[in-house]
Amino acid sequence: MRAIRDTQKIKTKRIKPELPAGFRDYPPARAGAKQKLLQTARETFERFGFEPMETPAVERTEVLIGGEEESKKIILNVRGSEEETSDMSLRFDLTVPLARFLAANPEIPKPFKRYQIGAVWRGERPQAGRYREFTQADIDIVGAGGLDADTEILAVIAETLDALGVVNFVIKINDRELLNTLPSRAGFPEKKLWAALRIIDKKDKIGADGVRQELEKEFGKESAKKIESFMRAGAGESANLAEITKRCAALGIEKNKIAIDRSMVRGLSYYTGLIFETVLTDIPEIGSIFSGGRYDNLIIPFTGQKIPAVGASLGVDRLLAALEKLGRLEIMPATAQALVMNLSDSLKTEYFALAKELRDLGINTSLYLGDDRAFKAQLAYAVKKDIPYVVIYGNEEKKKNVVTIKNLRTREQKEVAREKIADYFARP
Amino acid sequence: MRAIRDTQKIKTKRIKPELPAGFRDYPPARAGAKQKLLQTARETFERFGFEPMETPAVERTEVLIGGEEESKKIILNVRGSEEETSDMSLRFDLTVPLARFLAANPEIPKPFKRYQIGAVWRGERPQAGRYREFTQADIDIVGAGGLDADTEILAVIAETLDALGVVNFVIKINDRELLNTLPSRAGFPEKKLWAALRIIDKKDKIGADGVRQELEKEFGKESAKKIESFMRAGAGESANLAEITKRCAALGIEKNKIAIDRSMVRGLSYYTGLIFETVLTDIPEIGSIFSGGRYDNLIIPFTGQKIPAVGASLGVDRLLAALEKLGRLEIMPATAQALVMNLSDSLKTEYFALAKELRDLGINTSLYLGDDRAFKAQLAYAVKKDIPYVVIYGNEEKKKNVVTIKNLRTREQKEVAREKIADYFARP
Repeated sequence: MRAIRDTQKIKTKRIKPELPAGFRDYPPARAGAKQKLLQTARETFERFGFEPMETPAVERTEVLIGGEEESKKIILNVRGSEEETSDMSLRFDLTVPLARFLAANPEIPKPFKRYQIGAVWRGERPQAGRYREFTQADIDIVGAGGLDADTEILAVIAETLDALGVVNFVIKINDRELLNTLPSRAGFPEKKLWAALRIIDKKDKIGADGVRQELEKEFGKESAKKIESFMRAGAGESANLAEITKRCAALGIEKNKIAIDRSMVRGLSYYTGLIFETVLTDIPEIGSIFSGGRYDNLIIPFTGQKIPAVGASLGVDRLLAALEKLGRLEIMPATAQALVMNLSDSLKTEYFALAKELRDLGINTSLYLGDDRAFKAQLAYAVKKDIPYVVIYGNEEKKKNVVTIKNLRTREQKEVAREKIADYFARP
Repeated sequence: MRAIRDTQKIKTKRIKPELPAGFRDYPPARAGAKQKLLQTARETFERFGFEPMETPAVERTEVLIGGEEESKKIILNVRGSEEETSDMSLRFDLTVPLARFLAANPEIPKPFKRYQIGAVWRGERPQAGRYREFTQADIDIVGAGGLDADTEILAVIAETLDALGVVNFVIKINDRELLNTLPSRAGFPEKKLWAALRIIDKKDKIGADGVRQELEKEFGKESAKKIESFMRAGAGESANLAEITKRCAALGIEKNKIAIDRSMVRGLSYYTGLIFETVLTDIPEIGSIFSGGRYDNLIIPFTGQKIPAVGASLGVDRLLAALEKLGRLEIMPATAQALVMNLSDSLKTEYFALAKELRDLGINTSLYLGDDRAFKAQLAYAVKKDIPYVVIYGNEEKKKNVVTIKNLRTREQKEVAREKIADYFARP
């Protein structure tokens, strides 16, 4: 790609090794933890029969915006440096690409259950704790209109968090169809529904009192009161809310993990039926971490036809950050479990063979690759990298046909016959 | 993100469900195969003690270009829709971001061995078989100047391909330092080195005769002859080429899998020492699939200092395409191994419980989620999705306290006591 042939010239104009605002690295320990989390999520999704799928990071801007101009503001455009205009952008979620994929591939057998794990991007002005790139793990069931699919999504959410060792969470559920009846119940015009929902949605930010004040200002005291009582009414006449709560109990999801929350709105989103939001009760301020709902209209812009669909999205980075704050993130140790010391050039071939032998035993093994041949330096490296075992083989060991294995955790050191290394690592 | 509240309006302006040119989807079967490949690569890399790492898709354009204007042409710029200018772009490889990360985090203990798996983007004009997004799996060792690190990279390449079941491959190796001596050996001016290398590099495209013609035209008959004989000289005086060949043999890498190829140049890249390119001998036309080399200067633009580094990059999509062409791609079956039929609404709770029971046994299980309650329709779904087992539980079965399990591969059908399901699936 590029040849650095004149280092002098480059030295004079140093480049700052910085990331653009709103982007971040995952250094090894956190990347390892993230990967482990994703592996668990993947296994749980597949256990439920969800199939993996991938769509590209870049989509046609028209597809992403889908006729809703407000989406335009939050997307990042992509443009070849020799192109005059751009009609491509980075995806801001994994649901719109799924809709595009389904519209383009109508032959896919339904119900279609897929999961997708990938980065999404938002062009929002970066601020503390707000990132422009983050990883989502999405599960969706397409072509299933009944409550069974909704139930399964809730079961997957609960199972995934369980598999990740997250104990204290609650899945708030609500019903968009029920919310849609609000104008007639509270006696305000239909066209003001979203104005009302927008206020209700702010409860976590401005509190119940704040919501009341805003409702009174916008709808008058009487309507505000009706809206408030509507919000407190539990399952009310929503057959769906009542039925899904019953099912979750039958499925063994603990009662305190499912909560009807009629003030939960899920933003100005594409949902048409049940909606749900999962909150970690130990750290609710981090926001919802595994949320979604039913969206039966998403394919309409492409095909003109409805197709029932329900899904949820796990905010991977947010969950990682939460687990870290709660001190429950398993920071991965160095990938290597053993370091073969590289002490003498004359024994080089044997070091490589030794490392291979350990790897073939299933032990993640690093051969020391630095230039320093001193025992001390290599030991210090193992300590710094938190590698638990060090394998020492010098001329002494060669003569006796042994290796010395040092356990850096217990500080125990042992001479092991060359051909008994497997036994050493096999011990409990 | 968006609310589709007026479907009529949207219906009138239908959006084409198309991808931008140069981008592609990975539907479930291929996504599954890709994931399996990546999992194998990951395990192999970790077996060698490489640690995972992640950098964002977007970097500062200045970082990516690094003073080499020609990089500019192939990158894709990223811009918020409300921003006037763009100073961000999509990464075109994983090596430049690594250099940026290392410059920003000088405290990382060296040698540092990391792997990174991720998408990269190139802004080239899309054409058949050329994509603008593809996945790379990179391994790099930073802070190790000796041949040990180079050897290890070759060992990882061989082991990874081996673990993936790829038998017929050859790793071509060459030495940039040796190539640098070409002007003095062949008697042409130093500054024409890259003109010569560019011609030599075209051997696979234009053949040996084509290369000779171009060399004669550019350097005259005598120099061309010397260049040609230089190209054929094997390890020659390169102590590195001789030593690494010896080591690979000692490591048990078959002799025919390593080939010194003095006409292999690896483009106009940032390499400073050994370079290598892996070709599948059954399908060489697909190009190199796991290639790299030593690059000791890459951090200079940021810090002004050299840091020894060597690495290689696996072209994941290209390898997948090759395995597919060779008929050796393991197309993943449906993720679900069992389908629980959903035949009667009155048995709903029992179906969910049955599915959970199977999942707890470690069997990936789908509950049928479609609206059709007919046995035939659900069986057809299992057949279409290639799900091997179907679990039937109707009122008959309930009365007898059994389930009927149908093996769709053998067409064998069996009544199994409700509490003996584990035994059925445990049989060999």
